[in-house]
Amino acid sequence: MAILTANPNLRLEHDLLGEKHLPIDAYYGIQTQRALENFKISGVTLQFFPEFIEGLVEVKKACALANYDLGALSDEVKNAIVAACDEIIAGKFHDQFKVDMIQGGAGTSTNMNANEVIANRALEIMGYKKGDYEHCHPNNHVNLSQSTNDAYPTALKIALIKCKAKLLVELVAITNSFRRKGEQYQHVIKMGRTQLQDAVPMTMGQTFEAYAVTLEEEIERLENNTNLFLEVNLGGTAIGTGINTSPNYARLAVAHLRDVTGLKVVKARNLIEATQDTGAFIMFSSAVKRLAIKLSKICHDLRLLSSGPRTGFNEINLPPMQPGSSIMPGKVNPVIPEVMNQIAFRVMGNDLTVNMAVEAGQLELNAFEPIIGHCLFESINILKNGMSTLRTKCIDGITVNEKRCWDLVKNSISIVTALNPALGYEVCSALSKEALATDRSIYDLVLEKNLMSQEQLDEVLSPENMIRPQLKANK
Amino acid sequence: MAILTANPNLRLEHDLLGEKHLPIDAYYGIQTQRALENFKISGVTLQFFPEFIEGLVEVKKACALANYDLGALSDEVKNAIVAACDEIIAGKFHDQFKVDMIQGGAGTSTNMNANEVIANRALEIMGYKKGDYEHCHPNNHVNLSQSTNDAYPTALKIALIKCKAKLLVELVAITNSFRRKGEQYQHVIKMGRTQLQDAVPMTMGQTFEAYAVTLEEEIERLENNTNLFLEVNLGGTAIGTGINTSPNYARLAVAHLRDVTGLKVVKARNLIEATQDTGAFIMFSSAVKRLAIKLSKICHDLRLLSSGPRTGFNEINLPPMQPGSSIMPGKVNPVIPEVMNQIAFRVMGNDLTVNMAVEAGQLELNAFEPIIGHCLFESINILKNGMSTLRTKCIDGITVNEKRCWDLVKNSISIVTALNPALGYEVCSALSKEALATDRSIYDLVLEKNLMSQEQLDEVLSPENMIRPQLKANK
Amino acid sequence: MAILTANPNLRLEHDLLGEKHLPIDAYYGIQTQRALENFKISGVTLQFFPEFIEGLVEVKKACALANYDLGALSDEVKNAIVAACDEIIAGKFHDQFKVDMIQGGAGTSTNMNANEVIANRALEIMGYKKGDYEHCHPNNHVNLSQSTNDAYPTALKIALIKCKAKLLVELVAITNSFRRKGEQYQHVIKMGRTQLQDAVPMTMGQTFEAYAVTLEEEIERLENNTNLFLEVNLGGTAIGTGINTSPNYARLAVAHLRDVTGLKVVKARNLIEATQDTGAFIMFSSAVKRLAIKLSKICHDLRLLSSGPRTGFNEINLPPMQPGSSIMPGKVNPVIPEVMNQIAFRVMGNDLTVNMAVEAGQLELNAFEPIIGHCLFESINILKNGMSTLRTKCIDGITVNEKRCWDLVKNSISIVTALNPALGYEVCSALSKEALATDRSIYDLVLEKNLMSQEQLDEVLSPENMIRPQLKANK
Amino acid sequence: MAILTANPNLRLEHDLLGEKHLPIDAYYGIQTQRALENFKISGVTLQFFPEFIEGLVEVKKACALANYDLGALSDEVKNAIVAACDEIIAGKFHDQFKVDMIQGGAGTSTNMNANEVIANRALEIMGYKKGDYEHCHPNNHVNLSQSTNDAYPTALKIALIKCKAKLLVELVAITNSFRRKGEQYQHVIKMGRTQLQDAVPMTMGQTFEAYAVTLEEEIERLENNTNLFLEVNLGGTAIGTGINTSPNYARLAVAHLRDVTGLKVVKARNLIEATQDTGAFIMFSSAVKRLAIKLSKICHDLRLLSSGPRTGFNEINLPPMQPGSSIMPGKVNPVIPEVMNQIAFRVMGNDLTVNMAVEAGQLELNAFEPIIGHCLFESINILKNGMSTLRTKCIDGITVNEKRCWDLVKNSISIVTALNPALGYEVCSALSKEALATDRSIYDLVLEKNLMSQEQLDEVLSPENMIRPQLKANK
Repeated sequence: MAILTANPNLRLEHDLLGEKHLPIDAYYGIQTQRALENFKISGVTLQFFPEFIEGLVEVKKACALANYDLGALSDEVKNAIVAACDEIIAGKFHDQFKVDMIQGGAGTSTNMNANEVIANRALEIMGYKKGDYEHCHPNNHVNLSQSTNDAYPTALKIALIKCKAKLLVELVAITNSFRRKGEQYQHVIKMGRTQLQDAVPMTMGQTFEAYAVTLEEEIERLENNTNLFLEVNLGGTAIGTGINTSPNYARLAVAHLRDVTGLKVVKARNLIEATQDTGAFIMFSSAVKRLAIKLSKICHDLRLLSSGPRTGFNEINLPPMQPGSSIMPGKVNPVIPEVMNQIAFRVMGNDLTVNMAVEAGQLELNAFEPIIGHCLFESINILKNGMSTLRTKCIDGITVNEKRCWDLVKNSISIVTALNPALGYEVCSALSKEALATDRSIYDLVLEKNLMSQEQLDEVLSPENMIRPQLKANK
Repeated sequence: MAILTANPNLRLEHDLLGEKHLPIDAYYGIQTQRALENFKISGVTLQFFPEFIEGLVEVKKACALANYDLGALSDEVKNAIVAACDEIIAGKFHDQFKVDMIQGGAGTSTNMNANEVIANRALEIMGYKKGDYEHCHPNNHVNLSQSTNDAYPTALKIALIKCKAKLLVELVAITNSFRRKGEQYQHVIKMGRTQLQDAVPMTMGQTFEAYAVTLEEEIERLENNTNLFLEVNLGGTAIGTGINTSPNYARLAVAHLRDVTGLKVVKARNLIEATQDTGAFIMFSSAVKRLAIKLSKICHDLRLLSSGPRTGFNEINLPPMQPGSSIMPGKVNPVIPEVMNQIAFRVMGNDLTVNMAVEAGQLELNAFEPIIGHCLFESINILKNGMSTLRTKCIDGITVNEKRCWDLVKNSISIVTALNPALGYEVCSALSKEALATDRSIYDLVLEKNLMSQEQLDEVLSPENMIRPQLKANK
Repeated sequence: MAILTANPNLRLEHDLLGEKHLPIDAYYGIQTQRALENFKISGVTLQFFPEFIEGLVEVKKACALANYDLGALSDEVKNAIVAACDEIIAGKFHDQFKVDMIQGGAGTSTNMNANEVIANRALEIMGYKKGDYEHCHPNNHVNLSQSTNDAYPTALKIALIKCKAKLLVELVAITNSFRRKGEQYQHVIKMGRTQLQDAVPMTMGQTFEAYAVTLEEEIERLENNTNLFLEVNLGGTAIGTGINTSPNYARLAVAHLRDVTGLKVVKARNLIEATQDTGAFIMFSSAVKRLAIKLSKICHDLRLLSSGPRTGFNEINLPPMQPGSSIMPGKVNPVIPEVMNQIAFRVMGNDLTVNMAVEAGQLELNAFEPIIGHCLFESINILKNGMSTLRTKCIDGITVNEKRCWDLVKNSISIVTALNPALGYEVCSALSKEALATDRSIYDLVLEKNLMSQEQLDEVLSPENMIRPQLKANK
Repeated sequence: MAILTANPNLRLEHDLLGEKHLPIDAYYGIQTQRALENFKISGVTLQFFPEFIEGLVEVKKACALANYDLGALSDEVKNAIVAACDEIIAGKFHDQFKVDMIQGGAGTSTNMNANEVIANRALEIMGYKKGDYEHCHPNNHVNLSQSTNDAYPTALKIALIKCKAKLLVELVAITNSFRRKGEQYQHVIKMGRTQLQDAVPMTMGQTFEAYAVTLEEEIERLENNTNLFLEVNLGGTAIGTGINTSPNYARLAVAHLRDVTGLKVVKARNLIEATQDTGAFIMFSSAVKRLAIKLSKICHDLRLLSSGPRTGFNEINLPPMQPGSSIMPGKVNPVIPEVMNQIAFRVMGNDLTVNMAVEAGQLELNAFEPIIGHCLFESINILKNGMSTLRTKCIDGITVNEKRCWDLVKNSISIVTALNPALGYEVCSALSKEALATDRSIYDLVLEKNLMSQEQLDEVLSPENMIRPQLKANK
C-alpha cells in the first residue's frame, strides 16, 4: 500500500521485505525500486527495447481478459488494466520501464516493473492515486494467475517475433539491392577465385546474384526458427503444473494472447517441459548468427574485390564514406563492410552467451533468461542497423571496373581450363606452365603456336561459353 | 602412369609436380601419398568415419552413371567404376582411405583418395594392374565432370544425413527410456525447485516425462536442419558455373545420386551460391549442439537430484558404475552424467570451430570444409556414444527414494502456495515466516492454529491438487 | 575550413569528400559528423567509457609535446592543444565524443572525433572561432606525426590500464569480504562435497577463505596481462615504418606519454609488428574472462549452498534482496549470484568476439580494433558493477546455519573416511554399506558394534582431526 | 584379489561393486576394465598422449618415495613400484593405458589405470603374479596417501609442461625460419596495405621479420602461463584438507616430484583452493590459442600475398605441394596455410570447451578435468604438427616476386604520402585524385608537372626514405 509521506514528492510503499520511498509521480513501484538498487550492471534498460515492453504488456492484457472470463477480475478493474495496457502498447510510459536488462531473479524484476506500471496507470484511469493498490494491485490483479516463470518467457518470445519482423524488412531490402546490382552488372565478365587463386570466369552479375540468393535463404531460416516461439508456457505458472489456476485458464489466456498479438501462439503440449526448456532461443540465435556470418563473408569479399586501388584486386569500387587517412592523402577505406564484420563478431559472441545461459538452466526453471533476451535483442538491433547501413551506404553505390575485370580475365592463365575439351589436359598443362614462366598470356601462346584459329579461340573464350555448361563439353 | 620400379614392392606414379613411389599393393595413388606427407596433423583419418567414405563413393558412382548417360564413359569403364564403388560401399577397402581429416586444399586430398582407390580397384576389375591409369584414370574417368568443389561438399552432406539417422536411433531410445522411467514413478510426489529454491510440488513422473518431451523435440529439429543438406551443388564443378560440363550433366548426376543414396537430394537452384555457401553446416551444427545442451542440462539435473546421499537432495539413485574413491569408502559418483556434460562441452567447442570455418570462406569457395566435416562427424559420434552410455548405464537403472521425496514435500514451506486460494496471501506469508523461523512445518502450524481442518488440509495438500490446475482456483 | 552559413545555428566544414553543416556550438567537426551518419549501430558512444576519452586525449597531449620538442608546433598552438587536452582529461566536453563504439575504419572516426574536439577547443583558447582551422587543424596540428593506426591502439591500451585499476579496487574489496566471512565462520564444521556427493568434512571458514584465495590470484593475473599493454606502437604511424616522422619522434612521444599518464609505457621494439598485432588484447581478455569464470563458479556454489530452505543444502543464507515470487509466499531467490552468473556468460561471449576480431586482422593492420575495445570496456564495466553488487548485497550479508552444517556432518556416511586409519578400509566399507542401507549414522553403528569407545570416536571425528593432515595417519 | 578362473586366459578380480574377468596378461585391472565398458566415447585413449602417461607415473613414483620416507611403504614394495614406474617412463607398457580420454569421474579411471598397471608390474618385479594384490595393491600401496583429486590434476599439469616444451621447439624453429626469410628478402621493397587498401611502402624483409617477432613473443607467453602449472595440490587428497595423510606428507611428496620431474613444482599455498580451482588451464589454453590465432593471421596473410598468379596480389610464391585442381590445369593452392587456419579454428573450439569445463566446476572439485586435458593435449599436438608442416612445407620454400613487388610500389598512388613533406597535403591530394582518374602514376605526374626534379623524386621515393622515419620530416 502506498502511504503519503512528509515529503510531498515521495510516496511510501511496502512489500514482504520492508518499505521504500518512491517519487510521487513514478508509475513503477517498490519492487522496481528494489531492482533499480540491486541491478546497476549494464545501464541498458528495458526501454532500449520497445518490442519487449510491448510483448510484456500484451501478455498482461491477455491474462487480464482470461481472468475476467473466469470471473476473477471485475469489469472495472479489467477495463482499467486493458486501457492501461493499450496506452503502453501505443508507446506511452516506456520511460517507466527502468530496470537493467541484466538482472537476477529470472526476470521477476522485469515482470514486476510491468505489473507496477500497469497497476498504477490503471489506478489513475479508475480515478485513484498511484499506490492505492487495494483497488488494483500489481500482484493480485495485474499478475493474477501468472508467475514470472510463464509471463516473462512468453513476453520474450512475443517480443522476439516482433523484432524478427523488423529484421526481415531490412533483410528483404538488402537482398533486393544485391539483386539489382547483379542485374546492373550481368554483362561484366570477371575471374572467379577459389582458395584465393585464379579459377575460372564468371560474371559480376553472378557474383551479386549469389549474394542475393544466399541472403534470401535467411528469410525462411529466420521464419522457421522463430516459429518455435509460437509455443508458449503461459498458464503453467511457477513450474508448469498450473498450480493455483483454473483448468480453463491456460487455454483462455493463450486464446486471448492470440487475439491481442495477432500471432498464432499455442499452448505448449507439456507445460512443465516448456517452463524449464529454453532451447528455442538456441535455434533462433543460431539463425540470427547464420545471417550475421553470411553478411560477414560477403563483406570480407567486398573488401577483397575492392582492394587496391593499384596493388589489389580492384574489381569494384565501394562508395567513399569518409577520408581514410590523415597521413595518406586520397586513401579511402571500406569502412562500411568493416563495421558489418564487427557486428558479426559481436553477434557470434552473443550467440555463445545465449548457449551458455541455456546450458546453465537447472531443474524446473532457467533463471538466466534475462541475459538470453538481452543478447538476442542486441544482436537483432545491431544486425538490422548494420544491414540498413550496408545497403544504403555501400551496396547501392558500388560501381564495377569493367575494363579491369576483363583485363584480368584475358591475362589469366586459368582460362586455359576452357580449352581443355578442345586441346586436352596435357597440352593445356604445358601452356599453363609456359605462360606462368614467361609471363605471357594463354591467348597469345595459343595463337602463336597455331593451336587454334583466332576465331575459334574467341569463340571458346567468349563469356557465354565460359560462365555456364557448354554444349560441346564431355564429347 | 604407374611404372614398375627396381623394388618389386613399389610402383612409381607421377603427377604435375613429379614422381612418387607407392607400395605395390596400395589402392591409393600419388596424390593420396602427397597428402599423407603433407598432412600429418591429427592422426584421425577418413576411415574413422565410414559414412563419409560411403558418401564420397556414392557421389562417384552417381557421376559415373551420369557421364555414361552422356556418352563420356564407355560401358566397360563405367561398369568397373560402379562395381568398385559398390564394393567400397559394402565396406571393403576402407583401410585405403588414409588421409588426415584435417587437411588443406578444400578437400582435394580426400576427393583424390576416393578417385584413386576407385580407379585402381576398377583397373583390377577390368583385369589391369593398379596404376595402369590409361584404362581408368582417377581424374579423367573417376572424377570426370567433377571438381572437388562440388563432389566433396555433396559427399559431406550425404554422409551427415547418414550419421544423423544413426544419431536418431539413440535419441529415440533415450527418449523412450525417460518416458518409461516417468511412467514407473508417476505416483511419486516431490518438490519442484526454481532457482534452486523450494517451489511447488510435482511428480517424479512429470520430471522424467519432461525430459522425454524435451528430447523428443530434437528429432524434428535434427530432421528439419538436416533437410538443408538435400540441396547439393553437384554439377557446379569449380565455382558453380558448370564449366566443362554438358548442360544436362548436373540434372542427370543429381538424379542418379537420388537413386544411389535413396535420399531426396535436389540440385541447388543457384549453383554458384551453393558452391560458396556453407550455411547449412551452421544450422545442422546448431541442432546437434542444441541436443547436446539439453542432454547436459538433464545430466546436471540428475547429478543434483542424486546428490548426497546424506548431505544433498538424494531424491534419486543413479546405478553405481565404479567405485568412486580410493580414499573415501562407499563413495559412488555420477560418472555417467559427468561424461555427458563433457561431451556437451566438446560439442559446443566443435560448433564454434564450425562457425569460424564457415565465416572464413572467401569468394567462390570455402576452403575450410574439411574441419567443418571433422567437427561434425566427431560431435555426432561422441553424442551417439554418450546417449547410448547414458541410457544403458544410467537412466534405465535409476531408482527413486519415494519416502525421501514425500518427506521433503511434507516438510517444505512452499507448499503454503497451495493454501493461497483458501487462506489468502497475507496469512500464507505469515505462516511461511513462522515456519522458517521456528523450524516447523506448515502442516503442523495450520492445524495448531485451527486455520483448516485436517481433512481440508489433506485435501488441499493432496498430490492431485498440487500438481495441476485446480477447480477452485481463482474463485 | 569552417564557413559561416545563412543559418546562424550552423557552420559549414569541408573535407576531401565534400561539405557538411554542423551545429555552430559543436566542438566536433565534419569527420565526426560523417561518422555519426555512417555508424548508427549500437547507440553506445565513446562517452560511455570516460577512460577511453582520457586515454585518447593523453595520447594527443603527449604527441603535441613531442612535436613541439621537434619544432613542428609553435608555442602558442602547443599550449592551446595541451590546455584543451587538460580540460578534457578533467572531465569537460565528454558529451562531444559522440561516435558509436562499433565503427568501421579501424578507429579513424574515434581518432578524428578527438582531434576535432581538441582543435576546436584549442581555437577557442587561442581566441579564434570554432572551425577556423588554419590556426589549429585537427589533422595538421592535433594529429601531427600520428596515424589512427598508432594513436588509436595506444589510447585503447592506456584506457584499459585505467579500467583495470578500477576493476582491481572492486576485486580487492570482494576478496577481503570473503576473507572476513571466512574468519567469521572458521569454527563451523561442514561437509565437503566432490562431484556433488558427500566427501569429507571441512570448515565454512575454509570454504570462504578458498574463495578469497582464488580471487586474490586474479590480481596478479590481471596485472601481468595488463602489462603487455605498456608496449605501444606510438610513432609507427601508418604501418609501423614511421614514415613522415623524424627519427627522434617515436622516442619523444613515448617519453611524453609516460609523463602524461604516469604509466611505464615503452616503445615496441618492432613497430611494424606492434602495428599489426593485437595479441595483447587476447591475453587481457583471457584474464578478465578467468576472473568472470571464477566468480561464476563461486556464485554457482553460493546458490547450491543456500539451496532450500527445506529441500536443498541450506548451509548458508543469502541476504534477501527482493520478494522471490508473486505466487509463492515467502520465497526468496539468490538473485545477486544469478546476475553474476549472467555477467560471466556475457564476458565469455565478449571474449569470443575479441578473439574473432583479432584473428581477422590482415596484413599491416587490424581494422577491427573498435569492437575489441567495445567488448573489453563493457566486460570490465559489468564485472566491476557485478562485483560491487555481489559484495555489498550478498557476501557481506551471508549467514551460516551452524546447526544444520554440523547435523549434516554428523549424519553423513563419508566421515567413515576418518576412521580408515583406525579401523581399516574393509571394515569402513562394511560400515558405510550398512549405514546407507539402514538409514543410520556411522557414529551410532561404531558405538553399537563396540568398534571404538565414544571417547576415541569423538576424538577421531573432532573437527580438528578431520579438516587437516593427522599426526597418526599413515602409521 | 585376483583369482584364477576355469579359463586359463582370464583372471578374476573384484572390487566394491563386484567381480570382473580380465585377460590373464593384462597389466590393468578391474577398475580399468569397468572404465573400458563405461566410457566408449571418443576412441582416443590415454596412450595417444605419452606425456600424460609419463606425468601420471612420475606422480606415482614421487608419492611412493614420500610414503617410504614416512615409513608407510616397505623397502621391497617401494623399490618395485619405483622400478615399475621407471619402466613406464622409459616407454614400456603404454599400450596398457587404454581408458578413453573423455570419461566421467574426475579422472578416477585414469588414475586407477595407472595404479593398476604399476601395481601389476611391481608384482611381477617382486616375483608375484599379476593380480596378487595383497603384496602390492593399486589403492593401498600405489595410490597410498593420494586421491584422484590431487594425483590427477598434478599429473595433467606435469604432462602439459612437457608438451609445452615440445611445442616450443617447433615455435623456435618456425620463428627462425621467418627470420631467415626476412633476411633473405630484406632488400625487396613492396607496398604495405592497411584495411586491404594500398598504404605506404615497406620491405619484404620487414614483413617476414614482423612474423618472426610476433611469434617469438609467444615463447615468453607460453612459458609464463605454463608456470602457473608449477603450483600443484599434491598432498591435498580428497578436498585439499589432506585428510588421512601425515602433516609432512605433502611437503615430501612435492619435494620428490621436483626430483623425479626436474621441474620446479611447489605445493600450493592453499590446498583447498588448489583442489577446486582449474583456472591455470584457462590461462594456458589462452596462451595456446593466442599462438594459434597469430599463426592463423599469418597464414591468411600468406594466402593473400600469394593470391593470383594473375588476378591477385602475387607478391610471393608458396611452394606447390599438390596439384590444386583436377579440372583447372596448372592451379596450385595454398594448402599448407589452409590447414593451419583450420588447426587454429579447432584450437579456438577447444579453448571454448576448456572454458566451459572450468566454469562448470562445483564446490570442492572440478569433475570435468578429463575434457580439459583432452582438449589441451589435442590443441598442442595439432599446433605442433601444424607448425612443423608450415615451416618445412611452406615458409622455408617461399620465394618473392621482386619485380612484381617493385612495380606495384612504383605504380601505386599512395607513395604520394612520401611527398607530403615536400609538396604539402593539398598538392598531394590533387595528384592522388588525378592519378586515380587518369590511370597514371604519381611518378610521371610529378615529373610532367615539374613539381620536382627526377633526382629529387628518386631520392624521396627511394626505399631507404620510405621505409623508416626521415631526417627531414616535420620540418
